[in-house]
Amino acid sequence: MQVHAFAALSRGADLTPLTYDLPDPRDEDCIVAVSSCGICHSDIHMIDNDWRMTRYPLVPGHEVVGTIVTTGRSVTHLKKGDRVGIGWQRGACLHCPDCLGGNENLCDHSDGLIVGHHGGFADHVMVDARFAFPLPAGLATDSAGPLLCGGATVYSALRHAGMGSGANIGVLGIGGLGHLAVQFASRLGNRVTVFTTSPDKAKLAMNLGAYDAVVVPTGGAPPRGAYRLDILVSTVPHVSDWRGYIDTLASDGTLVFVAVPPKTIELNVGWLLEKRRRIMASPIGGRAIITEMLATAERFGIEPVIETFPMASVNEALARVRKNEVRYRAVLMR
Amino acid sequence: MQVHAFAALSRGADLTPLTYDLPDPRDEDCIVAVSSCGICHSDIHMIDNDWRMTRYPLVPGHEVVGTIVTTGRSVTHLKKGDRVGIGWQRGACLHCPDCLGGNENLCDHSDGLIVGHHGGFADHVMVDARFAFPLPAGLATDSAGPLLCGGATVYSALRHAGMGSGANIGVLGIGGLGHLAVQFASRLGNRVTVFTTSPDKAKLAMNLGAYDAVVVPTGGAPPRGAYRLDILVSTVPHVSDWRGYIDTLASDGTLVFVAVPPKTIELNVGWLLEKRRRIMASPIGGRAIITEMLATAERFGIEPVIETFPMASVNEALARVRKNEVRYRAVLMR
Repeated sequence: MQVHAFAALSRGADLTPLTYDLPDPRDEDCIVAVSSCGICHSDIHMIDNDWRMTRYPLVPGHEVVGTIVTTGRSVTHLKKGDRVGIGWQRGACLHCPDCLGGNENLCDHSDGLIVGHHGGFADHVMVDARFAFPLPAGLATDSAGPLLCGGATVYSALRHAGMGSGANIGVLGIGGLGHLAVQFASRLGNRVTVFTTSPDKAKLAMNLGAYDAVVVPTGGAPPRGAYRLDILVSTVPHVSDWRGYIDTLASDGTLVFVAVPPKTIELNVGWLLEKRRRIMASPIGGRAIITEMLATAERFGIEPVIETFPMASVNEALARVRKNEVRYRAVLMR
Repeated sequence: MQVHAFAALSRGADLTPLTYDLPDPRDEDCIVAVSSCGICHSDIHMIDNDWRMTRYPLVPGHEVVGTIVTTGRSVTHLKKGDRVGIGWQRGACLHCPDCLGGNENLCDHSDGLIVGHHGGFADHVMVDARFAFPLPAGLATDSAGPLLCGGATVYSALRHAGMGSGANIGVLGIGGLGHLAVQFASRLGNRVTVFTTSPDKAKLAMNLGAYDAVVVPTGGAPPRGAYRLDILVSTVPHVSDWRGYIDTLASDGTLVFVAVPPKTIELNVGWLLEKRRRIMASPIGGRAIITEMLATAERFGIEPVIETFPMASVNEALARVRKNEVRYRAVLMR
């Protein structure tokens, strides 16, 4: 099958049209006709080869909503016409302890949708069908895409950091990930405190269900001693005063990173000791938790706030994402 | 009551005899005749005022075993003649959320036995009776002291890092704390890997129940990719290659610090992200977990390996602790 896509031909380049043939699907693969595809900051990191694993031409896009057009012979749980979502991961070994435990996202042989393969800024995409997730009927085709990567990432992080209900949960940064974290945590019965440098994002966070939204000056930190958070999920890479955020944690509280700071952090273990605090980092989510997240999003009416662009305007959309102008997730529509 | 003790009169000084009167016990206090008292590295940090909270004269000693001689009017659970142990903590508010949750060790008003009070290098010591723990009959008077601080610290850390049974547990450093961690983790049904710079300590660790003991060169790290530890408890402050130790962790593995590195650690969050690893730090233990630890030590025959000294030889004992010559805990006997 011939695919029409948009690709970066070199590091940092604008995307240009690219046509290529899909390889024949393996027995366990499926081909999906793309309906919409969110733009994640990881797409930009890949375009810019920030993680030194990009192969060009690169077709970005890993927040895909689409419709099954072909399934390999082994695929029994999906059929032509089914609406599915695809996130960062397109395959895993499925037999290591991580995979067996439902943590395919931690598999040593995890295969990324846009790592050595072509992604969702295209009319079609092919993946292992076990990483194409049937979409609950209540989720909209235009807005569900960002759940598959951004939503899965914050939901899995919150759950693995111990989120239940009735807790104080902090969200650092209100963007594609943070605005979903606010919704998941608050709708599931937690009191959410947001930290942002932007007054307009603070206002949005309140509308999305936050209990409190604190505008922190760039380079600053929240007021000392004012918070006792059980979990703080950090969706921003650039923070100058991590100590100030660790100090927002209650006893046994957890700071969970979903965005990785580009530089090392100067961590004083004493900051953790006094209140037995924890630091962790959590990448995307496994298949079980993505499935749970999608069901939760439908049941509790959790929806990304999006700006849509025709796929042909991908460079305009990317430029707006680079400038942090999008509120809160850009989605390309076919 | 007049107390005969050994005290440091100034920073880093040898201890000299000191006589003082105990204040009248409050209704909730008890006075304990000291039988034995372990020497912890924290005593040396306090003698040296490393934590800038020492008041001189300082009577160190917070791994006390002794016998109740007096109880205040409100004390109903202890009586004269009862054998008790006392650790780092001598009091807490007992009504904050931490205390109510059994985490008196995290209380903002935690009172340290040798922080502004006189400790166990003495013939008598006074504490809030709720921090004097009845000793199970099967624990020996000479060797139980180190359980109260060292034992509580590693046991609480392992439990709060999630120790159950059947897991791979690492112990970094074999000293007063590490040699107890090996015993707790292995006797409770876990496979223990020890990292030490000392071949003779590696041998001891095997005798104490370790499955494997790895001699790591000073400044080095364990062989990459060779371990998948669920928990690694670090009992040593000085490590140059933390990344090497974080890499010993399995997916969802936890590095738990019980010794605080004196300098900040250069932490790359990416080291945690890939396998959703965690870092935490854990201080001593609350009353419930100390009680559980003492019962576990009796039931499973866990005993500190000690060298005893007459209390009058306290300076000789301290000198040996400072030189790391003691195997594995020095205990002063009255």
